Amino acid sequence: MEFDHAGVATDDRDALIDLYGTILDASVAHEETFGELRVAFLDMGNGFIELLEPTADAQGPIPNYLDQRGAGIHHLALRTDDVGDALDAARAAGVELIDEEPRPGAWGHEVAFLHPESTGGILIEFVEH
Amino acid sequence: MEFDHAGVATDDRDALIDLYGTILDASVAHEETFGELRVAFLDMGNGFIELLEPTADAQGPIPNYLDQRGAGIHHLALRTDDVGDALDAARAAGVELIDEEPRPGAWGHEVAFLHPESTGGILIEFVEH
Repeated sequence: MEFDHAGVATDDRDALIDLYGTILDASVAHEETFGELRVAFLDMGNGFIELLEPTADAQGPIPNYLDQRGAGIHHLALRTDDVGDALDAARAAGVELIDEEPRPGAWGHEVAFLHPESTGGILIEFVEH
Repeated sequence: MEFDHAGVATDDRDALIDLYGTILDASVAHEETFGELRVAFLDMGNGFIELLEPTADAQGPIPNYLDQRGAGIHHLALRTDDVGDALDAARAAGVELIDEEPRPGAWGHEVAFLHPESTGGILIEFVEH
């Protein structure tokens, strides 16, 4: 399973687009508002940095993360050809799942998250393009 | 600048090697004890997950991170051909540096870290193989 992206919670997406453009030579591959999140994927050549900024008055995991831990790396996404199969393997290994089934994610991807308490504290996302 | 690895702070490196081997199909590319850290790099095909477990009685950033935030994603490393040049560009952009000059890292790499307070809360590492 290859690296797909690192998800970053931020309260200023556009400032990070500018900064990472300058210091990491990363350009925007895709932008959208997905639910209550202003999302941007920055192209790193072999994967992406996904910036996640809550819209005003948004509620949910990203605003909660920002309130509790502050801006920073929120999750690590690994690319798979079949999120359902990857979930089955994780379930069989005793991993607690946040998403029992694949669901639509940003950029038209299929995604599912594993519970960090059973994966060493990392919020892992499976993503299928 | 391409993705190189995600650094993960853990108090049980070997358990995560087993778990990520099972659920992510990741195998160990390199292991060493680097200073007071038991390190393993797991091969993701297009990059690595670096597991970082403090040795007994270790002190420093990783034990502090585990004490304060618990196990999880500690840093994001981007690969560059020249860490010195990358640091110069970051410095010129007004980014606060943890390492003013490249220094030896695990696996014989040259590395340098940027201060997360000036990079959106992410601890960014530049790494040169």
